[in-house]
Amino acid sequence: MQPSVSIIGTGAALPNTVWTTQKLRDTFGDDAAKQAETTGVLSRRYCSSESQIDMACDAARAAIGAADIGVNDIDLVLSASAVPYQTLPSTAPLVMSRLGMADGVAAAFDVNSTCLSFLTALEVATRMICAQQARTALIVSSEIASRALPWRTDPCTAALFGDGAGAVIVRKSVDDSVGLKAAQMRTYPSAYDACSIGAGGTRIDYHTNPEEFARQAWFAMDGKELFRLSSRHFKGFVADLLDKAGWSLDDVDVIVPHQASPAGLTHMIKQVGVAPQKVVNIVAEYGNQIAASLPVALDHAMQGGRIQQGAKILFLGTSAGVSFGGVAWQT
Amino acid sequence: MQPSVSIIGTGAALPNTVWTTQKLRDTFGDDAAKQAETTGVLSRRYCSSESQIDMACDAARAAIGAADIGVNDIDLVLSASAVPYQTLPSTAPLVMSRLGMADGVAAAFDVNSTCLSFLTALEVATRMICAQQARTALIVSSEIASRALPWRTDPCTAALFGDGAGAVIVRKSVDDSVGLKAAQMRTYPSAYDACSIGAGGTRIDYHTNPEEFARQAWFAMDGKELFRLSSRHFKGFVADLLDKAGWSLDDVDVIVPHQASPAGLTHMIKQVGVAPQKVVNIVAEYGNQIAASLPVALDHAMQGGRIQQGAKILFLGTSAGVSFGGVAWQT
Repeated sequence: MQPSVSIIGTGAALPNTVWTTQKLRDTFGDDAAKQAETTGVLSRRYCSSESQIDMACDAARAAIGAADIGVNDIDLVLSASAVPYQTLPSTAPLVMSRLGMADGVAAAFDVNSTCLSFLTALEVATRMICAQQARTALIVSSEIASRALPWRTDPCTAALFGDGAGAVIVRKSVDDSVGLKAAQMRTYPSAYDACSIGAGGTRIDYHTNPEEFARQAWFAMDGKELFRLSSRHFKGFVADLLDKAGWSLDDVDVIVPHQASPAGLTHMIKQVGVAPQKVVNIVAEYGNQIAASLPVALDHAMQGGRIQQGAKILFLGTSAGVSFGGVAWQT
Repeated sequence: MQPSVSIIGTGAALPNTVWTTQKLRDTFGDDAAKQAETTGVLSRRYCSSESQIDMACDAARAAIGAADIGVNDIDLVLSASAVPYQTLPSTAPLVMSRLGMADGVAAAFDVNSTCLSFLTALEVATRMICAQQARTALIVSSEIASRALPWRTDPCTAALFGDGAGAVIVRKSVDDSVGLKAAQMRTYPSAYDACSIGAGGTRIDYHTNPEEFARQAWFAMDGKELFRLSSRHFKGFVADLLDKAGWSLDDVDVIVPHQASPAGLTHMIKQVGVAPQKVVNIVAEYGNQIAASLPVALDHAMQGGRIQQGAKILFLGTSAGVSFGGVAWQT
């Protein structure tokens, strides 16, 4: 039996400051702005005063409001971001605290599969709710990509990313037609080095090797490696996921993809062979918000009335690691 | 129906260098060594040349050997550490790669509930196996606590911690008497600030605020806050967990606790009212290995012949965040 869990609310939060090509030109110079423009990302938001937790809580409050529940109805809090708020403790308890949730009412922990963290958390929450370990889960992804973007050395990579947060509330449903119909994740670690921020964990000792720490404190990406892997495997991955769900591609009403890049989305649409109008595509406006891209895109589609009761949603994405992930979800 | 999942192999890896009180005296001076001695931790291991991934893979290989499986039999890799190897990507894909696992054979991601990460991963793996999302999971916790210990300012805290790694292999079982009988986690975020490393995430901008980053790049702990919370809530937490499992405290054969500190373990034993000889207690020799403590203690009990077929194991612990966690597991 497939689990029946509903998404009962979604929310998103974006920082106030918009970075257009003109603002890039004023800050990083003409050449960087020209290179940035070639990516197809026309604007993105960057945090100035907003913290990762501020955005997480704003997105969570919007989802809680849409779900029409109280904060203490939540008994599972999953933080699903690629980068945490601080090294220790994990981020979820701080979100729980800042939302005003009472001590002891929920379990709170983090899951991390970089850009696919939201899908991993959606599966974990579903499995825990179906095992009666929780009734109502908050999943929140919040990212400040702008902290480590290589504007001085690689504007074409830097231009792809933006900041933001997205959240959903999922709850056990009595209607067993709804919820997760299939979930699939496959990891291809031969391309582990294709996207990275090398500093910040145990790899480089900050105290004894500060120069190397500084060198590795920027995001770096080898887009060709990612393209090679997805060209080879992504179409088959999607076919297997649809097969697991018992769906054909035509059955799918809406595709909510990770907003990797304009070129990446175009490639994915062509490779999978899906009608472009079924795909939620907000990357030109917001850029790649790392793990927040998927729930922000979902919320965007919900707010735009694109997801009706009974809709079949196909979430798809790739992440640093490298992993492919997908979830077939019926609303 | 309770899931039937077996632990079919365990393993541990420890760095070569032992830090006794004498070595502490030679390195940090007489006063620090004297303060360290009062904690009751008599030795601990610190990494010199070993990386977090080296230890993770050594522990994983031991568990894989004990389970008598091949690396490509594993289809789920969970990294369950408080601190990652690098900021991005997550750690699990790198473990998968270094173990020589093939591209695409497994899903790999991280879970993080600081010191309770292993228990969280044990629950996640169990739920995913029971949902037929995986058949054989590797869970590995590997920590280099020694990177950020405040030896110069707080030797009594620094002395508590050690480095190490522990791993288990879990697999779907046809014997439905075995496996996870109950799992419980509750988070008390009022004490979020009681244990922390403030730097390393988005909280402090390394590039624009390097002085604050440097100040917060050490582990800090307020033991009194943790003591206050566990005094108030831990006994009731354990009673509820046992109740969920349908076990009395007398039914439990072995208690595998997080090795928080000698004083913490003594307090837990007294508070829960358990016979001390049932408790796996290795903290004086290895210190608190953060998330690795629980699987290392489990492996220690397995190697020592303390866990027989059919044994009822109670895993218990507290973590930064603050969370309480426990799992009732039948072998």
